[in-house]
Amino acid sequence: MVKPIALTLGEPAGIGPDIAIAAWLRRESDSVPPFYLLGDRAFIAARAKLLGHEIPLVDVGQGDVSRIFSEALPIAATGHTATAQPGDPDDNSAPAAIGSIRQAVSDVVAGHAGAVVTNPIAKSVLYRAGFAHPGHTEFLAELAAANANPPQPVMLLWSSDLAVVPVTIHLPLRDAISILSSRMIVDTVRIVVADLRARFGIRNPRIAVSGLNPHAGEDGSLGTEDQTIVAPAIATLRAEAIDVKGPLPADTMFHEAARRTYDCAICMYHDQALIPVKTLAFDRAVNVTLGLPFIRTSPDHGTAFDIAGTGRASPSSLIAALRLAARMAGPTPSS
Amino acid sequence: MVKPIALTLGEPAGIGPDIAIAAWLRRESDSVPPFYLLGDRAFIAARAKLLGHEIPLVDVGQGDVSRIFSEALPIAATGHTATAQPGDPDDNSAPAAIGSIRQAVSDVVAGHAGAVVTNPIAKSVLYRAGFAHPGHTEFLAELAAANANPPQPVMLLWSSDLAVVPVTIHLPLRDAISILSSRMIVDTVRIVVADLRARFGIRNPRIAVSGLNPHAGEDGSLGTEDQTIVAPAIATLRAEAIDVKGPLPADTMFHEAARRTYDCAICMYHDQALIPVKTLAFDRAVNVTLGLPFIRTSPDHGTAFDIAGTGRASPSSLIAALRLAARMAGPTPSS
Repeated sequence: MVKPIALTLGEPAGIGPDIAIAAWLRRESDSVPPFYLLGDRAFIAARAKLLGHEIPLVDVGQGDVSRIFSEALPIAATGHTATAQPGDPDDNSAPAAIGSIRQAVSDVVAGHAGAVVTNPIAKSVLYRAGFAHPGHTEFLAELAAANANPPQPVMLLWSSDLAVVPVTIHLPLRDAISILSSRMIVDTVRIVVADLRARFGIRNPRIAVSGLNPHAGEDGSLGTEDQTIVAPAIATLRAEAIDVKGPLPADTMFHEAARRTYDCAICMYHDQALIPVKTLAFDRAVNVTLGLPFIRTSPDHGTAFDIAGTGRASPSSLIAALRLAARMAGPTPSS
Repeated sequence: MVKPIALTLGEPAGIGPDIAIAAWLRRESDSVPPFYLLGDRAFIAARAKLLGHEIPLVDVGQGDVSRIFSEALPIAATGHTATAQPGDPDDNSAPAAIGSIRQAVSDVVAGHAGAVVTNPIAKSVLYRAGFAHPGHTEFLAELAAANANPPQPVMLLWSSDLAVVPVTIHLPLRDAISILSSRMIVDTVRIVVADLRARFGIRNPRIAVSGLNPHAGEDGSLGTEDQTIVAPAIATLRAEAIDVKGPLPADTMFHEAARRTYDCAICMYHDQALIPVKTLAFDRAVNVTLGLPFIRTSPDHGTAFDIAGTGRASPSSLIAALRLAARMAGPTPSS
């Protein structure tokens, strides 16, 4: 039996509820895999009505989702009510958003769900409620760890055109350069290779690693880090029989012919990774967290408070996230 | 009368001669504007023969090029012979390459040519011959200046999909961050706006400026330079009635809908600018030098020693450079 996907509510005042409803409405046309939404049923009903949809909502006991899904949007209560209006987060938003994430992880760890897909949260709202994690991903890593050390989460931006992983993520660019190390690159590539094998069915993943500097440093004349940090990491990985090449000049590694030569590009900092994937696949890119003991994807956009409740939010990225999560959770394809 | 374009030889051992010949052969199918090649006639004849082409070469007195061009490849001797074999630069390469550039600038300044298009050079070869400039562009700026202060050259990467300008160019990334200033951003945008008006016929150019840090610094939490350096530059430019917006998160400014909102993107460093344009338009991007007193474009690739003389070099980027130079040199279009 294919397990359903646990979809979190996200920030109640954002577009998460809107796109969850829109994705369910497109379940047939867009082959959306069965999911259930972790949230307050009355809140979801009110949002659907605001959007002009009278849709059936059915509370689920775990296990019934696939049957329910074709006829109704399955809802799993989390014990938190939500009252925030679209675009206007209030004090109740944080517990509802956080409770939904906790319950989704609990479900996937218990085997009731096949994967977690998260709707966007608003970190500033959660911080006011005492949330102490730098972001969604770090919170998931801690929930996953229980009493052990949290795993190292790795962010993969996936689209059918291009898959990229930034080694450093949400740091000032100056700090990203300072903190970059061979060890970080090696650890990241090992996690990527393991998950591409286990969850994407790619037996021998081909990895392309960018240089930090223009022209990958041009033999040191445009910066030394490519020789002192990136190249040694690649040598270490090659010694483990990983199919890895680089450091490659970042500007010439993302055109169509170049992309065909690798399965995943490893980049040194945020914009180096996210510029090419969002240039090519803005509405279709899915954020995948690797290195967790369960599958987690999310749409690659924010809460979009300005259009919440208007019906203008596109569910494309969420649908891509749900479909990729189902693919990753399914039987391992051969390659 | 439309003036012809002066095309430099480039590094004799590279693909410059190959793609010049290939562009002339495609003059009708690809609407290549009339150009003449500045180089040694015997050398060009030998390369054409090696490539399997028996093409007529005609020495030009200035002014005859447009007539000659339909029947023969027009050649202007520079007084330097070249003997280098494909892929194997020798000591004579440097004077032939440098002389070709000098003569092209002299022709365009004297009004004999409408624009300069440069084939790729090999800086390492020129350095051995005592060439003291960081690159092609700086040499052109000095030639253009004669006895005055050289103008500030600005590099524009142009394609029909996207036009980008990096404020800092060939520097280690760490140094690019350190050297970046509001003044550099303001000076660059002023030159871009003036040339987009004068040479691209865009009356009110719409300029988009990227942030330096991820998410353009996210209100300072991901770096302060966007607030302390980029934003003040934008305020200065707005006060001059320039249509400029930013600092924009670099990862979300290059998808199709975003690109329609501006004419040129100004980026803070090399890869931030070159990744999106080469991802979208790898074979079609043209390098344009703004801020010179004449028009100069070049193909956006190097000498490609490994395929020189084989016939495998694509003239696509050179043809795009020739066509754009002719468009810029022609009557100003209205917009």
